[in-house]
Amino acid sequence: MFRKLGAEFFGTFWLVFGGCGSAVLAAGYPELGIGFAGVSLAFGLTVLTMAYAVGGISGGHFNPAVSLGLAVGGRFAWKELPAYWAGQVIGAFCAAGTLFLIASGQDGWSAGGFASNGFGDLSPGGYSMTAALLIEIVLTAGFLVVILGSTSSKVPGGFAPISIGLALTLIHLISIPVTNTSVNPARSTGVAFYAETGAVSQLWLFWLAPLIGAAIGAVIWRYVLSPDESLEGIGGDAE
Amino acid sequence: MFRKLGAEFFGTFWLVFGGCGSAVLAAGYPELGIGFAGVSLAFGLTVLTMAYAVGGISGGHFNPAVSLGLAVGGRFAWKELPAYWAGQVIGAFCAAGTLFLIASGQDGWSAGGFASNGFGDLSPGGYSMTAALLIEIVLTAGFLVVILGSTSSKVPGGFAPISIGLALTLIHLISIPVTNTSVNPARSTGVAFYAETGAVSQLWLFWLAPLIGAAIGAVIWRYVLSPDESLEGIGGDAE
Amino acid sequence: MFRKLGAEFFGTFWLVFGGCGSAVLAAGYPELGIGFAGVSLAFGLTVLTMAYAVGGISGGHFNPAVSLGLAVGGRFAWKELPAYWAGQVIGAFCAAGTLFLIASGQDGWSAGGFASNGFGDLSPGGYSMTAALLIEIVLTAGFLVVILGSTSSKVPGGFAPISIGLALTLIHLISIPVTNTSVNPARSTGVAFYAETGAVSQLWLFWLAPLIGAAIGAVIWRYVLSPDESLEGIGGDAE
Amino acid sequence: MFRKLGAEFFGTFWLVFGGCGSAVLAAGYPELGIGFAGVSLAFGLTVLTMAYAVGGISGGHFNPAVSLGLAVGGRFAWKELPAYWAGQVIGAFCAAGTLFLIASGQDGWSAGGFASNGFGDLSPGGYSMTAALLIEIVLTAGFLVVILGSTSSKVPGGFAPISIGLALTLIHLISIPVTNTSVNPARSTGVAFYAETGAVSQLWLFWLAPLIGAAIGAVIWRYVLSPDESLEGIGGDAE
Repeated sequence: MFRKLGAEFFGTFWLVFGGCGSAVLAAGYPELGIGFAGVSLAFGLTVLTMAYAVGGISGGHFNPAVSLGLAVGGRFAWKELPAYWAGQVIGAFCAAGTLFLIASGQDGWSAGGFASNGFGDLSPGGYSMTAALLIEIVLTAGFLVVILGSTSSKVPGGFAPISIGLALTLIHLISIPVTNTSVNPARSTGVAFYAETGAVSQLWLFWLAPLIGAAIGAVIWRYVLSPDESLEGIGGDAE
Repeated sequence: MFRKLGAEFFGTFWLVFGGCGSAVLAAGYPELGIGFAGVSLAFGLTVLTMAYAVGGISGGHFNPAVSLGLAVGGRFAWKELPAYWAGQVIGAFCAAGTLFLIASGQDGWSAGGFASNGFGDLSPGGYSMTAALLIEIVLTAGFLVVILGSTSSKVPGGFAPISIGLALTLIHLISIPVTNTSVNPARSTGVAFYAETGAVSQLWLFWLAPLIGAAIGAVIWRYVLSPDESLEGIGGDAE
Repeated sequence: MFRKLGAEFFGTFWLVFGGCGSAVLAAGYPELGIGFAGVSLAFGLTVLTMAYAVGGISGGHFNPAVSLGLAVGGRFAWKELPAYWAGQVIGAFCAAGTLFLIASGQDGWSAGGFASNGFGDLSPGGYSMTAALLIEIVLTAGFLVVILGSTSSKVPGGFAPISIGLALTLIHLISIPVTNTSVNPARSTGVAFYAETGAVSQLWLFWLAPLIGAAIGAVIWRYVLSPDESLEGIGGDAE
Repeated sequence: MFRKLGAEFFGTFWLVFGGCGSAVLAAGYPELGIGFAGVSLAFGLTVLTMAYAVGGISGGHFNPAVSLGLAVGGRFAWKELPAYWAGQVIGAFCAAGTLFLIASGQDGWSAGGFASNGFGDLSPGGYSMTAALLIEIVLTAGFLVVILGSTSSKVPGGFAPISIGLALTLIHLISIPVTNTSVNPARSTGVAFYAETGAVSQLWLFWLAPLIGAAIGAVIWRYVLSPDESLEGIGGDAE
């Protein structure tokens, strides 16, 4: 269990440090910056790389909504959920703190939104709360279908990190303008406390919507798409 | 059969929501937008990810032209074609409606082209009907050669979603300026009814050209490149 | 042999239509264009996708320099070289012609450089003939090392198209400003005759340099890196 | 051993020529340039492609910090470390020299920073020495966790070059604005001597930080994440 939590801690650290780091440090660099497309690629590659590296240890969730969805889908033991969530949130906090230290090493820098998620006034494109709720639910549901499907026994071993990582890239390509893209409550929580924009007050939506979406996606997979699949899986209640 | 249609429904939903969503929401964001390259990547990743997730259930067509081409190529049962087309078109409609709801959550937003396909006045770069016909036929034909070849027994299992998804990315990198890129009648149909530009009146071309192209590609594969390949395949009339 | 030449014809058609097509149609689109990075990705994906689709038929060269290098490396029968070169060049011509037809469907369009390769006045960045020679030789040599190494028996089956296709993307990311990137005499030849800039007069360099580079790369692989590898391989003198 | 050093020489040559070449030649091209995102992709693809090509010969390090980390992680023989470092640094020098020859083939070109790494005045975004130290350590540590994890026996063969190469892309997406991204002392050394900006005086940091980071990453993997893994591996003291 210690190794599993270590894997979730470091994996979520990498996700937040890499994804939010690319947004804070490199997205808006004049002329040569990586823009939303580069940030989308960065988020996806954090998951692709760490899923290869430590996915065999913890399952490679790095995301409380994913852990919930896998539990709903029968692939992860409910009793491990609290510990996974703790490891993920702590990893996200440490990553955000490290990123803050580095980013503040630039003269005149201020945290601003610090890659936090938001809606309404805090949405990059000014989208409403309803739009934010809806897109986070839809995209997290799709994410879980991809995760559950790509790790099913029908797919040859080894491809799941590519499929899952690039699904996260896709999700960011669509939705950064709407909510700055969460689909991951740990990622939202880690950076919200460093933002100067009041992002903490909207944090509830970035727990609620991804968790609802993940549950919906898992239900779609388990009861519609794959009703007869056996319920063993990547997590189980082993150790 | 119910699971197959569910897979086609959700897969096509993901394709239209993700691909057209990235175009509507993120392509033209000031300074940081993802541009045509980001939209191209998004379309390809919708197919890559859902082909891994549900390709083992339905074959992962998500596109009426692909279903037709696979039937011509001897890999898919003709009698399943109508149901697949229905599942795909309904999935596309639902995706476009969901996207419309989200996009309209931005003050002052109007649908405009809503990522619809077009030629002449409705072509992003003002290309003629002939150019539109020709490029949609050529690219869909090439797409089918890639699909049939990548799913043949000569290729080690598991790589087809990468090859096919990235082929769709390639196709968009080439042709967004000409027709906004269809090669998929369901994708064209789903969004056309939401566009404010009269895209519906040009919808016939985005059924005709991809279907012709798909048939040509399948004939090239079956009778030129791979004349002696056995005619069993990914779809069959099983269940 | 007929199937092999068909595969080389269609594969090279796809490479030139897709790679040069993305450059001619989409690279410079105002605001949203795909730029050199998008063109680089497109070229690589043409090879990745067609190598999966028809690589099992012809070896998937799509490039006279690659065919030469594979022959030097002992992986391809010298006696098949002329036929392969013919299939590749004819495929490139047909692709360039099709692209010309489509591109001219835009009001006021003129061919200009038409994605042709060049040095000096015809280099995008104004690089000298020496720089052009050197970079084409170095990059084609590296390309052949990647090709020979990635298709050696030490690499698990199925990954070579990813490695080789993305190597072509890498090569374009480096060198479009210098020569518009060839490393492929067929690609250079196909479009040169449609260019309005005198690109044909510089075509010799884009045969000479890639062929020299390919031979050097094959010699490095065969006699330095892999001296004891057996000389059977992807092509042989079969069929 | 000769083949191994040849593989490290050519691989590091490719990394520096390709990665730094894309930065020097193509990143800042007006309108169409590839920007930091294109450079990030180029660096990653140099490793992805050469790891497939020659990874089976030398292990595919191409980086003194990686060699150190693998030795700390018990996967590489300490006694081979000096020779590997020599091959890597010499390869980087040759690549930088070749790149200089090509780049100077443009009228009025001057070397400027020549893709060298730096902090303070020599940081692209003006980041402090502390920020540079911290980010190079964190990213190299993460890089080694990805490398050690992706090459462990739990991951199906063949995926490691994808994971490792794209990890380098990710690392560049995050940190080019801070230090121009090293995580590789050979890459930093090769170009520093051609820069006109005094980059050599800061070279110590780009040895120190990546080496410390690599050791930390290897310790995390070996003693936290994978305490019971056997100590055989990709390098060993063979040959």
